[in-house]
Amino acid sequence: MAAETLPGYRGKLRELLTRAKVGVGDAVRVHTRGESYEGTLLPRVENADEWHIVIKQKTGYNIGIAHAEGLRVEKIGEAIKPEFRPPPLPPVKEGLPKVSIISTGGTIASRVDYVTGGVYAAMSSRDLLSIVPELADIAQIEADILYSVFSENINSDHWEGMAKRVAEKIRQGADGVIITHGTDTMGYSTAALSLAIRNLPVPVIFVGSQRSSDRPSSDSATNLVAVVNAAAHAPFAEVVLGMHEGTGDDSIIFHPGAKVRKCHSSARYAFQTVNASPMARFKDGKFEMIAEHYRTRQKSEPLVMNRFEKKVALIKFHPNFDPLVVDALVDAGFRGIVFEGTGLGHVSETCYDAIGRAGKAGVLMGMTSQCIWGRVNMNVYSMGRELTRRGVEPLEDMLPETAYVKMMWSLGNSETPEEARRLLKENVAGEYNPRTPYARREP
Amino acid sequence: MAAETLPGYRGKLRELLTRAKVGVGDAVRVHTRGESYEGTLLPRVENADEWHIVIKQKTGYNIGIAHAEGLRVEKIGEAIKPEFRPPPLPPVKEGLPKVSIISTGGTIASRVDYVTGGVYAAMSSRDLLSIVPELADIAQIEADILYSVFSENINSDHWEGMAKRVAEKIRQGADGVIITHGTDTMGYSTAALSLAIRNLPVPVIFVGSQRSSDRPSSDSATNLVAVVNAAAHAPFAEVVLGMHEGTGDDSIIFHPGAKVRKCHSSARYAFQTVNASPMARFKDGKFEMIAEHYRTRQKSEPLVMNRFEKKVALIKFHPNFDPLVVDALVDAGFRGIVFEGTGLGHVSETCYDAIGRAGKAGVLMGMTSQCIWGRVNMNVYSMGRELTRRGVEPLEDMLPETAYVKMMWSLGNSETPEEARRLLKENVAGEYNPRTPYARREP
Repeated sequence: MAAETLPGYRGKLRELLTRAKVGVGDAVRVHTRGESYEGTLLPRVENADEWHIVIKQKTGYNIGIAHAEGLRVEKIGEAIKPEFRPPPLPPVKEGLPKVSIISTGGTIASRVDYVTGGVYAAMSSRDLLSIVPELADIAQIEADILYSVFSENINSDHWEGMAKRVAEKIRQGADGVIITHGTDTMGYSTAALSLAIRNLPVPVIFVGSQRSSDRPSSDSATNLVAVVNAAAHAPFAEVVLGMHEGTGDDSIIFHPGAKVRKCHSSARYAFQTVNASPMARFKDGKFEMIAEHYRTRQKSEPLVMNRFEKKVALIKFHPNFDPLVVDALVDAGFRGIVFEGTGLGHVSETCYDAIGRAGKAGVLMGMTSQCIWGRVNMNVYSMGRELTRRGVEPLEDMLPETAYVKMMWSLGNSETPEEARRLLKENVAGEYNPRTPYARREP
Repeated sequence: MAAETLPGYRGKLRELLTRAKVGVGDAVRVHTRGESYEGTLLPRVENADEWHIVIKQKTGYNIGIAHAEGLRVEKIGEAIKPEFRPPPLPPVKEGLPKVSIISTGGTIASRVDYVTGGVYAAMSSRDLLSIVPELADIAQIEADILYSVFSENINSDHWEGMAKRVAEKIRQGADGVIITHGTDTMGYSTAALSLAIRNLPVPVIFVGSQRSSDRPSSDSATNLVAVVNAAAHAPFAEVVLGMHEGTGDDSIIFHPGAKVRKCHSSARYAFQTVNASPMARFKDGKFEMIAEHYRTRQKSEPLVMNRFEKKVALIKFHPNFDPLVVDALVDAGFRGIVFEGTGLGHVSETCYDAIGRAGKAGVLMGMTSQCIWGRVNMNVYSMGRELTRRGVEPLEDMLPETAYVKMMWSLGNSETPEEARRLLKENVAGEYNPRTPYARREP
């Protein structure tokens, strides 16, 4: 791979940068819309749009500046451009378990190396092992890139693709599969994969990172060591999410895929197991199981059930909620609606008519609680029964986000409305917990 | 007050019950829609609908059975109907602080006494003092009934009424005001009141209960003792919410009104202060301030700013979110939308067009995080800037629910769009916390 001065830049922006005689790694000042920004010019990732210049500011943050009329770039310093030398790869150790890593994008995959001129939209085996060479002592790593998507753009097509790829890797002999994913919607994806692959023989482990790999405080490496260990050796064959348990680097916690939620926008311990017990902990190089019940590693043939109905919505109720939103979805042919009601699962009586109309139109409806913790109970107050009478299913202690994914899956994998309703209420992948733990475990 | 056999029952149901010769307190069996229910006939509250029979089942739960074709009631046991004797009231102790209690409804107010035949939609002074006579040793209690509404039906009209009534009570000399409220939407109401009354001279304290007053495990009494103490003696002049801190009865915690959220559907410690420090604790009969900064009791004239714009929506983003919801709101003339985005404040790029259109239509938009904890930061990734460019305001660490109320208030109390945007971004009542506490305080 030869160093390229403007990797990833295309079209008008590339012309503009070429005219300004700047290359990746140069210090630049960008003038646009009356403001100016200073930083180091970064390469763009593959498949990136062609309208943004990306620079790393002194603060450490990368920003993208949109191309606009009058945008001007000025070179204020020279790049250090060493010859490209790929780092030596550690030898593959035969006999170690085989771990497959599937990249889908997100912060953990956004490795940007402007010095070598290499730019990686997601991580290949080489990247991974050059960042964290000790992984080669744990397993025979095989890594490939499925998507390069920021996780707010992940949708059910990606879930379908992930399920298919995971099953392929398992059939090819992987002892464990890892999916790297942006953290924003990772909880939705873990719920989706928990449902979309039945009869798992080995663990499937999602991992992300709350800090870019190119920042000193990155949690990528510790997270990776832990999840590769889990993929190679953990006794469970479940879909889980492995991330920091607290602020320290010493403990990685594995959350069950259908019971996990991002509960902090920036902390490393962003993810929490809700209304259940975490699956396991990796601390000081050792595993400790926490969950009492789990599917064990076994010989079994994975069964892919990866169809997700797209005409489903998640609606959060609030005071003064206008039921026109429900009407609009029914009119647009939506087949399912999950409500995030208040408390034990309520919405105002001003919604009853719209909900009744949706029920009559055959829309499958379910109720969860915006409290997040606890469970709905629609038998305590008469208002709850007004809703069940109109066809709204109480979804127990299911997370609203999981309930939404579950409804898409139930409608996608059934032939009749009755079957979809039955699937929705059935505990398929631990999304229901018959006994909500009384105390919450939180840092 | 004479005992009445069917208090609260009207119309057809009253006729039916009269024909069946049953009265409140009798054991009955109700047959409807092929099912039958047994229990003690309860009276209805004032202003109740006329279509439900309410019975207390053996389990302790009250259920309402809707009137339907073929409904039949059978008497299976006689009521004990003693003569009505009002409990003796403790004497008013002159010199104690004056505390005003305003009932709005909810579980804490649902006192149903079918033995005396008295039925209370909300609590009067007499009811309160007969349940918790020791309140008379703490303050001169004056209590009145403003609303009798289950909290999922509370809307901004009620917020406007509460603000007006609180200001009246303060002007009449109250040393502290308590509002009893259903817990489901109490967090929205505390945010509303935090904004709607400026220049508070005394504390305004919301309180609810997670268990009916007529159940042995009720938390009503301990909550009431603590909040009356706070209304009488607390050093702060802020809108707060006082409820159980944990599972025990020994500690009541006071949460700041704009930073509190119901985070458990049924636990007594349902409420949590989010992204801030709780205000104070009442333990073993003593106050302990926790917050470092607060408005102190002072001589000041309360200023009521209680207009809330109704054409505002809160939208929770999710994978596969269909922007038709945004379009429908814009078409219906909505003036404000608060988004609950993912992570640091993102939505998928498939929403950009609808958001751009909303911005051009003059809709005020704000971004919060569905993580609940942490703050949005729309400068880290380019996608955040795509949204701010279209007019979406990053709302820092504001709770989504508070942000929704704040937007209604900002639009309701301003003359121009610019003023509304300025108000939305201004820290009016502690809804923004410049420094998010690193660790969460949770039970």
